[in-house]
Amino acid sequence: MSSRRIFLHQASLSALAMTIPSLPNFAEAMSSRNDQEGVLRVAIMGLGSYGTRVAQAMESSKRAKVVGVISGTPSKVENWKKKYGIPDKNCYNYENFDAIKDNPDIDAVYVITPNALHKEQSIRVAKAGKHVICEKPMAINAAEAKEMVTACEEAGVKLLIGYRLHFEANTLKVVNMRKAGDFGDIKFFQGLSGFMIGDPTQWRLDPALSGGGAMMDIGIYSINGARYMVGEEPIWVTAQEVKTDPVKFKEGIDETITFQLGFPSGVVASCLSTYSQNNLDKFFLNGTKGFAEMQPSTGYGPIKGRTHQGALDEPHIMHQTVQMDQMAGIILDGAEPPIPVDGREGLKDMVIIDAIFEAVKTGGKVAISV
Amino acid sequence: MSSRRIFLHQASLSALAMTIPSLPNFAEAMSSRNDQEGVLRVAIMGLGSYGTRVAQAMESSKRAKVVGVISGTPSKVENWKKKYGIPDKNCYNYENFDAIKDNPDIDAVYVITPNALHKEQSIRVAKAGKHVICEKPMAINAAEAKEMVTACEEAGVKLLIGYRLHFEANTLKVVNMRKAGDFGDIKFFQGLSGFMIGDPTQWRLDPALSGGGAMMDIGIYSINGARYMVGEEPIWVTAQEVKTDPVKFKEGIDETITFQLGFPSGVVASCLSTYSQNNLDKFFLNGTKGFAEMQPSTGYGPIKGRTHQGALDEPHIMHQTVQMDQMAGIILDGAEPPIPVDGREGLKDMVIIDAIFEAVKTGGKVAISV
Repeated sequence: MSSRRIFLHQASLSALAMTIPSLPNFAEAMSSRNDQEGVLRVAIMGLGSYGTRVAQAMESSKRAKVVGVISGTPSKVENWKKKYGIPDKNCYNYENFDAIKDNPDIDAVYVITPNALHKEQSIRVAKAGKHVICEKPMAINAAEAKEMVTACEEAGVKLLIGYRLHFEANTLKVVNMRKAGDFGDIKFFQGLSGFMIGDPTQWRLDPALSGGGAMMDIGIYSINGARYMVGEEPIWVTAQEVKTDPVKFKEGIDETITFQLGFPSGVVASCLSTYSQNNLDKFFLNGTKGFAEMQPSTGYGPIKGRTHQGALDEPHIMHQTVQMDQMAGIILDGAEPPIPVDGREGLKDMVIIDAIFEAVKTGGKVAISV
Repeated sequence: MSSRRIFLHQASLSALAMTIPSLPNFAEAMSSRNDQEGVLRVAIMGLGSYGTRVAQAMESSKRAKVVGVISGTPSKVENWKKKYGIPDKNCYNYENFDAIKDNPDIDAVYVITPNALHKEQSIRVAKAGKHVICEKPMAINAAEAKEMVTACEEAGVKLLIGYRLHFEANTLKVVNMRKAGDFGDIKFFQGLSGFMIGDPTQWRLDPALSGGGAMMDIGIYSINGARYMVGEEPIWVTAQEVKTDPVKFKEGIDETITFQLGFPSGVVASCLSTYSQNNLDKFFLNGTKGFAEMQPSTGYGPIKGRTHQGALDEPHIMHQTVQMDQMAGIILDGAEPPIPVDGREGLKDMVIIDAIFEAVKTGGKVAISV
């Protein structure tokens, strides 16, 4: 009964309770090929700073465990082997990881590599018959994202995108208030996403690896946030780019873009994506009956803010811990997340990013259908 | 020496102290045709709610006094006569107010009528040889505003626009911090201006009287605020309009417009103007070294907020009281305001409003030079 106890523990997050469907029966849960009673056995691909953060968060996860690594850096692999007790047979590099197909002790691979590598790597994982968890942005454009969705569907594996905030309690409180009509008719969303990026030699500033600048990395939070906060899909995009440092932010790397999303009901979202400002990470949702303000709205620490009803004070749990617990439920139990985190969800953000870049180029309004 | 004492009293507002030039000598101050020792004698044109508010604020003014009225409603004139002890000879209507030319007891007329009337009325006041204080928006487009500026210059009278926030202590604290470099390089301004407008029969929703909807009335605060907060003049505008209630907001009355202003240094301003949302009135200025958040940022009550250095806690004085005290100094003493409030300042906002409306129509970026 351990998996049921674990599940109930998670369900005690009040904000999630109403959105998590009933547990599949015990026999079903046990019928998975997983031999650790409802624990998702994950290999991390890419042992950089975010991969390290995810692994640390998984130490507190009741349902997901780091059991393998894929890395091009042997010294990192050695460290991870020691830290997480990973056996040699679960360690791969970027040349040989297709062999994971023959490893019955790994259920899923979490792809946490530079954006431009996600597509090829995710498709190789899918073809190896393993579930794919891919960090956002899932790819560098919508065409790549579609290929990934198709490949995973054809391989019969799940494709989940690392949208940790889709499980975050204060975020879900606001989303549930919106669904309950507490804000009245939604009218406006504002997302300000950005930070002053440091080291100019990092891969995020190399267009061949990142596929874009601030928009891919941090602007996507305002795009994705606009969608789950408003609860509609945008039908048009306008965007304006400003570049003040063309040396650091070379061709193909956006520094600052303001963009607007129009929704069918007439809601408009006004957003900022930037690599040259701190003091941001703000969401504001406004309706005819009330509002929500969140700051920080997407950072790794506690999400804070208030609505017209009072403070957003759901307890903080490390986002990636909750995410991995919940993703285990999605993969192993067929659970439905409170807000979608699958490949088709990620594809929508990529369609919008494509449209934003097009709007910057054309200077006009770009119609979209996601 | 009373005018000097009064001036020193005003100068004790610390935020203003550094920007107010030295007092012209006493003889100069006394050489004005004003016989009440440095008190500006004002006739209010338009006795509606804002005119009433201005008159009430002037009860606390040390340097400006309501001495006359211009109104089309005799019952209102009767009430004002009683309340402010206004003699019959200082009461005019819209037909006969040109005769104010021959009234030595009135120095200036404060035009507080529907927007579309400002131009003709202000020019008539100027031709009558009286100083003009005109409520914002100063006109319904830049061409009208230019006519007003020219007419007042030709008549040798001052033209001042009712930019009360240009004298507001917390606003000036932020502006002075920006001038001192406390925010580092300015990168971003956000202005959210709007409210849910009520009575659909009011003149503000009649394009013939208002010349526009939310933009003219409330969006102008974000335009003007962007300029004084950033400290530059915009060089391009983009804008997007959304209308959810075409019955209430008929042709020529904008309901909701998001707009962006680009500045020479690369600063971008992202703003909202709306007649269908409350919970707004927010300014946010972001720089490389710090930020300012103001909410409310433009309302009649206390302006509140914080910067990276702490709370904005300058004491609240009724804005219109400070404005009229300061405008008396500008008109009678030739004082320079901390932020311009003259007709050319108002004209800049009108050029930007014209460009916003053009950008809405064309869907593209509109270059401007103000």
